[in-house]
Amino acid sequence: MLPEWVSEQCPGTSTVHRDAAFVRQCELTKPAGALGRLEVLAIELAGLQHTDRPGAERAPIIIFAGDHGIVAQGVSAYPQEVTIAMLANFAAGGAAISVLARELGSSLEVVDAGTLAEAEMPGIVADKPRRGSRDFSQEAALDPDDVAFALDCGRRAVARAAASEPDILILGEMGIGNTTSAAAVAAALLGTSADALTGSGTGLGATGRERKARIIATALARHGLAASDASPEQILCAVGGLEIAAISGAIIAAAQRRLPILIDGFIVSVAALAAARINPSCAAYLIFSHRSAEQGHRLVLDALDARPLLDLDLRLGEGSGAALALPILRLACALHNDMATFAEAAVPGRAG
Amino acid sequence: MLPEWVSEQCPGTSTVHRDAAFVRQCELTKPAGALGRLEVLAIELAGLQHTDRPGAERAPIIIFAGDHGIVAQGVSAYPQEVTIAMLANFAAGGAAISVLARELGSSLEVVDAGTLAEAEMPGIVADKPRRGSRDFSQEAALDPDDVAFALDCGRRAVARAAASEPDILILGEMGIGNTTSAAAVAAALLGTSADALTGSGTGLGATGRERKARIIATALARHGLAASDASPEQILCAVGGLEIAAISGAIIAAAQRRLPILIDGFIVSVAALAAARINPSCAAYLIFSHRSAEQGHRLVLDALDARPLLDLDLRLGEGSGAALALPILRLACALHNDMATFAEAAVPGRAG
Repeated sequence: MLPEWVSEQCPGTSTVHRDAAFVRQCELTKPAGALGRLEVLAIELAGLQHTDRPGAERAPIIIFAGDHGIVAQGVSAYPQEVTIAMLANFAAGGAAISVLARELGSSLEVVDAGTLAEAEMPGIVADKPRRGSRDFSQEAALDPDDVAFALDCGRRAVARAAASEPDILILGEMGIGNTTSAAAVAAALLGTSADALTGSGTGLGATGRERKARIIATALARHGLAASDASPEQILCAVGGLEIAAISGAIIAAAQRRLPILIDGFIVSVAALAAARINPSCAAYLIFSHRSAEQGHRLVLDALDARPLLDLDLRLGEGSGAALALPILRLACALHNDMATFAEAAVPGRAG
Repeated sequence: MLPEWVSEQCPGTSTVHRDAAFVRQCELTKPAGALGRLEVLAIELAGLQHTDRPGAERAPIIIFAGDHGIVAQGVSAYPQEVTIAMLANFAAGGAAISVLARELGSSLEVVDAGTLAEAEMPGIVADKPRRGSRDFSQEAALDPDDVAFALDCGRRAVARAAASEPDILILGEMGIGNTTSAAAVAAALLGTSADALTGSGTGLGATGRERKARIIATALARHGLAASDASPEQILCAVGGLEIAAISGAIIAAAQRRLPILIDGFIVSVAALAAARINPSCAAYLIFSHRSAEQGHRLVLDALDARPLLDLDLRLGEGSGAALALPILRLACALHNDMATFAEAAVPGRAG
């Protein structure tokens, strides 16, 4: 059973604030619409944040990490111990997302939502029901209780982040093998072939990618998920991962708190798709940061009706793409809040 | 005659630094290539800046403004006096680029390279050979001396900016009617139809855009520039604008000083195309920031073999698109300079 809270309705956008923001955009000293998607961003944020002055200054980053039994099938270019080694790198400040967090002035919390780590790791919040998922080519990856725990783990992390009164939330992930789990989850949720959703992950060649797709397709058939109408919960149990479920939980919990979420690449987008299937009212709070080079991302974005802000051939994960898009949001808000109006600047408007 | 300096060769990239940067990117704790275009940016900047630590912190912004006689033909949605009113808005801090400069910590210099302003304006550098260009539907827009003056104006502005030892330069423009002049210059340089290069500018409807395209096509024929092999100088004289020529001069002068230039939208890209035709060795220093919503931009970008970083439906000018891309460059450099290597972080590399 999913926890009860995941079904609670997320609050709606404030049409009063959204409409006022639209009017203001038309009064600023620029041709109407000339700031393109930045205008839309500022208007949407004003509505979601119920404010005349939308903002993205306080943007905590939370990374959820997990290990995946499916790596026993040789689906990753990197060995499984990289998951834990990278957690230490996050905490030590050497990873991409560590550098980005510092540059952006964002806090960075790393949650071990289900890695193989046995001991506590300094600087890492351990919050997991088990060590890694099972090999889903052989058996169900997770039990229903594991998925429920992971959703709660996401909610707990959001509650901790909420203490700093954030404007927006950035979620990231780490887990060797998690593009395999994410592709399986997405294929099952979308009723699409495993092949269409399977990419190279951290760097498989063409043969490795095809093999990975076949492993996913076989597993989906074994679990009865090929072109089925299985629930998100059933899918997460069969082929999911703990960090993926934790991110789904964090997304729903953030939206319930009226906190917009800047969505990263393939894996976080799949978690967002699962979240939106569990609780459709969270979808309004999703801001899509970038189009990943990972093959399956396009289909997931299409299903979410998403048009990401950036397209820079990124495929790193960790929340790095979302972090890279944060300055765009911040500048969109600064322009909205700080530009002069035609009246204030005594600039003539359109001719005729 | 063009000033002699515009033909002087720009220094080449440092292959030693570029190659070292490539090696470093492969050693950082991420799958090789996973940061996509950010890796390419850092590597290219390292080569252009001849350094192991590429940077984009010091990024002064220079805006060149001019007026255009062609607005007498009703080619703009806004009245001509908006050019001067917007200069005052830049100086007062209320324009989009003013807000962006503050947020980015960039200096902002506004150069009147040829507006109709008679008196000195506070906070504006006046450096112009004449007040506005002539109506190019009737006669040549500029004399050869005007174009030479404008190129020198651009060089003088770069010399002033160089005093702060910038890492990169952002150039912008303001001038009611300048999409018309830029479309005419681009059509002549590329030997393409006026219709393909003509967009809506600040907001013409479909009928207005078609009319604008016809005016440009007729003028190009009158000046003998349709499918001709006229020189960039002849083209700038016939249908150019003072701020456009000033930007071409600034681009060449910056590249000669080994200073990369972050190129804005349609008008700055057309100035870059003219600059690259005048002095092809400047082309290596051009970093293209965004794909404008202005119709002709795609063709100009294709001619420059450019793939811009952003695509956000912007069509404001002022250098705003380049300013919005600056954080991407800064973060690309921070990642390159500050991430840990696999060896430093004791993270295992690829399997097998």
